[in-house]
Amino acid sequence: MRIGQRVVRDDRVTTHVALVARAFGARKILMTEVNPDIKCTIEKVTNIWGGNFSLEFIENWKSEIKMKKNSGFKIVHLSMYGEKINDIQDKLNKQEKLLIVVGAEKVPREIYEVADFNVSIGNQPHSEISALSVLLDRIQYGTQFEKVFSGAKRKITPSKRGKSVEMEEPRD
Amino acid sequence: MRIGQRVVRDDRVTTHVALVARAFGARKILMTEVNPDIKCTIEKVTNIWGGNFSLEFIENWKSEIKMKKNSGFKIVHLSMYGEKINDIQDKLNKQEKLLIVVGAEKVPREIYEVADFNVSIGNQPHSEISALSVLLDRIQYGTQFEKVFSGAKRKITPSKRGKSVEMEEPRD
Repeated sequence: MRIGQRVVRDDRVTTHVALVARAFGARKILMTEVNPDIKCTIEKVTNIWGGNFSLEFIENWKSEIKMKKNSGFKIVHLSMYGEKINDIQDKLNKQEKLLIVVGAEKVPREIYEVADFNVSIGNQPHSEISALSVLLDRIQYGTQFEKVFSGAKRKITPSKRGKSVEMEEPRD
Repeated sequence: MRIGQRVVRDDRVTTHVALVARAFGARKILMTEVNPDIKCTIEKVTNIWGGNFSLEFIENWKSEIKMKKNSGFKIVHLSMYGEKINDIQDKLNKQEKLLIVVGAEKVPREIYEVADFNVSIGNQPHSEISALSVLLDRIQYGTQFEKVFSGAKRKITPSKRGKSVEMEEPRD
């Protein structure tokens, strides 16, 4: 869940947040404001690279969090003020359903209270994109990179030099 | 080293790249184009949160890489087409001096040849900010978060709820 972004100024950053969520195995991103450009970028990527990642518009982050909690989700809020990821990653790995809240520069103070876990990826200012990616990497131990994206038209074969891409043959 | 960015459009992203580099323990960022806003943000952060991270303007990325290679650096190029980080992180961890090249959407093809390692953080499109942070996290095994930033005016004490910040007393 992305909250507190300033439309336009933060659009490129929000797009990166969504792409990271998808690439690291999240099922969807929830947003209170959706710029059509972001939607378009995500649809293009999913169309080419596969998978079922989706973007969902929500009216109100607070009631959404309440509903998620009621259906068994644990809420992780990423913040440079939170508990160290090093100390808490094993606990997070054991949870079945996680909703990760990614704020922009200013987040409402209440989020610290409603979150089950406030988690920091280091205690220096850096980037919500970075925080989300390291969190998702840590709690999945790199296994996210083995995920298969169904319906992909392009697949990469990792290589030491250059680009090796498998393209789907065009269908009749 | 940041290459291939489009000034203005990529400015926020480049700022995040620089902040991640600093927060995860890099010594400097090298850039072929420097927007004054990025410089200003980095200086503000370093002024408050400490450390000696710096931003360096370079004329030519190719000759810069050649020089770095001659002085013992290994060149890592982050690319979704490269070798899997899972397979190569231990090797990278053993290197003494690393220069990490972070491209924007379009990078010159030669970089694949001059790099000692082309490394992918998953083979899905995501974000250069995300790629840099996961790489720096993986090759330091979380130890980067123990780094002390000298001269900091503010320090965070990680906490489960809210914000706990230690401020330096103003000097006479």
